[in-house]
Amino acid sequence: MTLDEDLEDAAVAGPGHPGLRRARAWLSRACEPGTIDFWRYVDGLGPVEAVRRLRAGRAPERLRALVGARAGTDHSLEDLRRAERCGARLVVPEDDEWPAFPLHALTLATAEEPDDHRHQSQRTSALVPPVALWVRGGPRLDELVDRSVAIVGSRASSAYGEHVAAELGHQLGERGWTVVSGGAYGIDAAAHRGALAAEAPTVAVLACGVDRPYPAGNGALLNRVADAGLLVSEWPPGAAPHQHRFLVRNRLIAGLTRGTVIVEAAARSGATATAKRAAKLGRRVMVVPGPVTSAMSVGCHELLREESADGQSVARLVASAAHVLEEVGAVGADLAEPSPRPTGPRDGLSDLAVRVLDACPVRIGVGPERLAAVAGCEVLEVLRVLPALELAELVQWTGSGWRLAPPPKGGGGRGAAA
Amino acid sequence: MTLDEDLEDAAVAGPGHPGLRRARAWLSRACEPGTIDFWRYVDGLGPVEAVRRLRAGRAPERLRALVGARAGTDHSLEDLRRAERCGARLVVPEDDEWPAFPLHALTLATAEEPDDHRHQSQRTSALVPPVALWVRGGPRLDELVDRSVAIVGSRASSAYGEHVAAELGHQLGERGWTVVSGGAYGIDAAAHRGALAAEAPTVAVLACGVDRPYPAGNGALLNRVADAGLLVSEWPPGAAPHQHRFLVRNRLIAGLTRGTVIVEAAARSGATATAKRAAKLGRRVMVVPGPVTSAMSVGCHELLREESADGQSVARLVASAAHVLEEVGAVGADLAEPSPRPTGPRDGLSDLAVRVLDACPVRIGVGPERLAAVAGCEVLEVLRVLPALELAELVQWTGSGWRLAPPPKGGGGRGAAA
Repeated sequence: MTLDEDLEDAAVAGPGHPGLRRARAWLSRACEPGTIDFWRYVDGLGPVEAVRRLRAGRAPERLRALVGARAGTDHSLEDLRRAERCGARLVVPEDDEWPAFPLHALTLATAEEPDDHRHQSQRTSALVPPVALWVRGGPRLDELVDRSVAIVGSRASSAYGEHVAAELGHQLGERGWTVVSGGAYGIDAAAHRGALAAEAPTVAVLACGVDRPYPAGNGALLNRVADAGLLVSEWPPGAAPHQHRFLVRNRLIAGLTRGTVIVEAAARSGATATAKRAAKLGRRVMVVPGPVTSAMSVGCHELLREESADGQSVARLVASAAHVLEEVGAVGADLAEPSPRPTGPRDGLSDLAVRVLDACPVRIGVGPERLAAVAGCEVLEVLRVLPALELAELVQWTGSGWRLAPPPKGGGGRGAAA
Repeated sequence: MTLDEDLEDAAVAGPGHPGLRRARAWLSRACEPGTIDFWRYVDGLGPVEAVRRLRAGRAPERLRALVGARAGTDHSLEDLRRAERCGARLVVPEDDEWPAFPLHALTLATAEEPDDHRHQSQRTSALVPPVALWVRGGPRLDELVDRSVAIVGSRASSAYGEHVAAELGHQLGERGWTVVSGGAYGIDAAAHRGALAAEAPTVAVLACGVDRPYPAGNGALLNRVADAGLLVSEWPPGAAPHQHRFLVRNRLIAGLTRGTVIVEAAARSGATATAKRAAKLGRRVMVVPGPVTSAMSVGCHELLREESADGQSVARLVASAAHVLEEVGAVGADLAEPSPRPTGPRDGLSDLAVRVLDACPVRIGVGPERLAAVAGCEVLEVLRVLPALELAELVQWTGSGWRLAPPPKGGGGRGAAA
């Protein structure tokens, strides 16, 4: 069936018709992601009608100019099949799996983009939601990014930076948080590796097709990421990692996560640009300091010195995973949840019990000493609250240590352990 | 002449009588510095009358209790002679040399000390001015501390911390700023050494007599400090460095300087306590970060993470001497000068010329490349403004480089080069 016939049917059948996914696949190749006019057009008309008008030449002049000759071509079925062959799928806003809540910040941000269309469509820094996401790997995208933190930094990292990034990735992974990064050499790779070492899923957001992860030197690592977590891209299979695409991609890393940690950054580097976009999206910006003698820490210290107009710091200094969780773990006023969590056995726990609970890893059990160190209390206090936590089925003895108990069966149970 | 006869004469003769200095010498041994009741009593009656009443048993009960059996003894002449033998003098609030402006912040702070006398007199953290200062070395105390910065930190410092402290001390010294520290091992010693290497005077504020500098292992260094700068103490010659005296001493380091830089500090260390007292005195608190893997940076990062109740940072991250000068160099609204500087040839200079001028060292001439690096401009720009600065007699060619011109002869000329 041709694309146009498929769209005809989809327009009649309404939501749920496979033509809709095909329309989004076509859109993901029709125009560079991050183009605000294009996103607004699709958002206004819906994907099926938008594609029909673009292909029929019935779209406004400036949108036809964005798509150009691609209006007459169609690789949608081919792209969807190519994705399938490498274990990938196209996740669209109409899917349950779509990370609607985190990406909502990008939708809100579009309202603040200027109205001068000429400018908007050129900008690589525009805060625009994606029209669709190519996703390679097993887990559901929305579940993985629900409790996620971005760790990004320099490709030309130092041994110190890589050590810190891997350690943060490991500790966050151990505590049930998803590490999101860009799959690049240096800090990104170290963060992914740390998470994988904790047997935690991790997400690499790429600036190229998920079937040809870049850089090639990280191929083995990115295949492991795809096995345990997800590779995510706005670009269709086969897309090449053009330079400007990294800048466009960075807004997704900031948008999908609750906060961004910069581990090493040279002066005026891309990582600091990502950090500022994260702040603009209302996300926490966290920075790991380093020796003032290291060029790879200059950008980090610049960010930590920066103050907004009202004298507030742009970024918060973090020196450990505990500091990171202090920023993103608490559901604060400026980071509201999509809906209130159901009341669970966690409610009514003492502060100490909550801290011990938060210290419990998701997968591998750890001893009370480790819990005490992470919770910042005495071992005796940990031993005092553990029985109550076990009784409430919040923690579990694995035979070698304590970990979070798996959520109770039945829908919506993730709230209790979140 | 006995002390009491001398005081009798002084009481009749009024200000200018040598009995006054003798009274202050006696007071400096009569009661531990940092005792607020004692300072208030002396401040209220004047030193001569205060000593007369204390010796005659006519002081209020709680003040007699503070002085105890020392009321009947007198080492004032002996102390003054002992000081003279080691090249020291007693500087009193009635002297021109007294650093009245910086110490005024301590006087203001006494107003906020609680009224419960029992508590006050025990506290090692009370913000109380000194009753007198024993000063060893050539330069005038008030002149040295006029443009001064404290650099303090851990005694158990790392090679990294010592490198950074020495480098900061050197660069600040080179730019005509006085480095004030505590003469201790580690960061303190490195900061003093850095300043001395720049042939700049430096001030060590001690918690013992200036004739017996502590620690003994820093003896050679502290003698060099006394040769080029000053050793300062509230305690009379021969006084031993008791543990609690360091805590009392720390308020003076904070009080005498425009800001305090913490280079390395372990968790919950003394340096962080000094920093908080500096903040309380309205001084800038600056912190050098370090590797998050270093225990010696934990206290620094704690301070940088700390926020006051209104969400403002307690400390500012600094990574270079330029950052330090940015904090203390500008005469901001919250750090008013004692009196407006006289109008000088500096007024009306371009921003660029001021930056180049600020980049000029006081003593050793440096080349245009160095000036450009410090001023943050092009070498060509430096070469363009230097002739005008030389014409205005603000800078001087030494034969090997450019430095600030010495201030014009005649009173009050320091303003022009400040």
